[in-house]
Amino acid sequence: MEGIFVYTTFPDWESARKIVRELLERKLIVCANLREHEAMYWWEGKIEEGKEVGAILKTEVSKWKELREAIRELHPYEIPVIARIDLDKLNREYSEWMARVLFG
Amino acid sequence: MEGIFVYTTFPDWESARKIVRELLERKLIVCANLREHEAMYWWEGKIEEGKEVGAILKTEVSKWKELREAIRELHPYEIPVIARIDLDKLNREYSEWMARVLFG
Amino acid sequence: MEGIFVYTTFPDWESARKIVRELLERKLIVCANLREHEAMYWWEGKIEEGKEVGAILKTEVSKWKELREAIRELHPYEIPVIARIDLDKLNREYSEWMARVLFG
Repeated sequence: MEGIFVYTTFPDWESARKIVRELLERKLIVCANLREHEAMYWWEGKIEEGKEVGAILKTEVSKWKELREAIRELHPYEIPVIARIDLDKLNREYSEWMARVLFG
Repeated sequence: MEGIFVYTTFPDWESARKIVRELLERKLIVCANLREHEAMYWWEGKIEEGKEVGAILKTEVSKWKELREAIRELHPYEIPVIARIDLDKLNREYSEWMARVLFG
Repeated sequence: MEGIFVYTTFPDWESARKIVRELLERKLIVCANLREHEAMYWWEGKIEEGKEVGAILKTEVSKWKELREAIRELHPYEIPVIARIDLDKLNREYSEWMARVLFG
């Protein structure tokens, strides 16, 4: 079991909760941590600002491609960020729990 | 000095502050950044939701095993997440400050 | 295109917004996600606590050195944290958008 975090951002709580629930139901992730942030970014030649909801999605590396495709399918943004960070270490009890949820 | 971030989550501010303070006092970390989030996760066959406090713990890689054991010992959860991310680069002045706090 | 996240923290929203805007204007980053946290840390032999604003800065690895130097130049802290996490995967459409903003 190789644990990964996948970071993505949503325009609001409604879309965040709805999509995260769908990812959980499809057993593509075991857990998500969601919190608001202020985004500042380039868009069509201008610097924009706005509230978003960012999510850390926790899962196993073998779910990556299916998870990425599901986010692409469900996400309201034209160009969402879907960034994968491979964990260098993950405590065994969490890793085993993750395996039971995803594959058990 | 190889800097690492360790991510864990607590059920509330009281336990988060108490445990983080203990980790600081034991010189297992130099700094923690704590903020609330909404967690959504599988638990005993159901999708659950609830507020938590997430923490980024900053330290040096040689502290990892002792830090992981301390979190296991102090943490109220049966199965906490203790995820290590090795930093690919860390500015020298912060790295040197970390060394002075942890080892100096 | 190799995507990276750079994590840093600011003493307040004013300095965070001002510096992030400058980094955007210099095309050193494409996007930043900012949110408040509670920091707990060692400082001059004591454990201190206080509010901060943490930022995830999104960019391409070739911008790293210039970005680090710009943060050092602009940052109000004597010793800011400037931590780079190399993304293990990043969805192609975001990666391509990043290239257009930074180099296009």
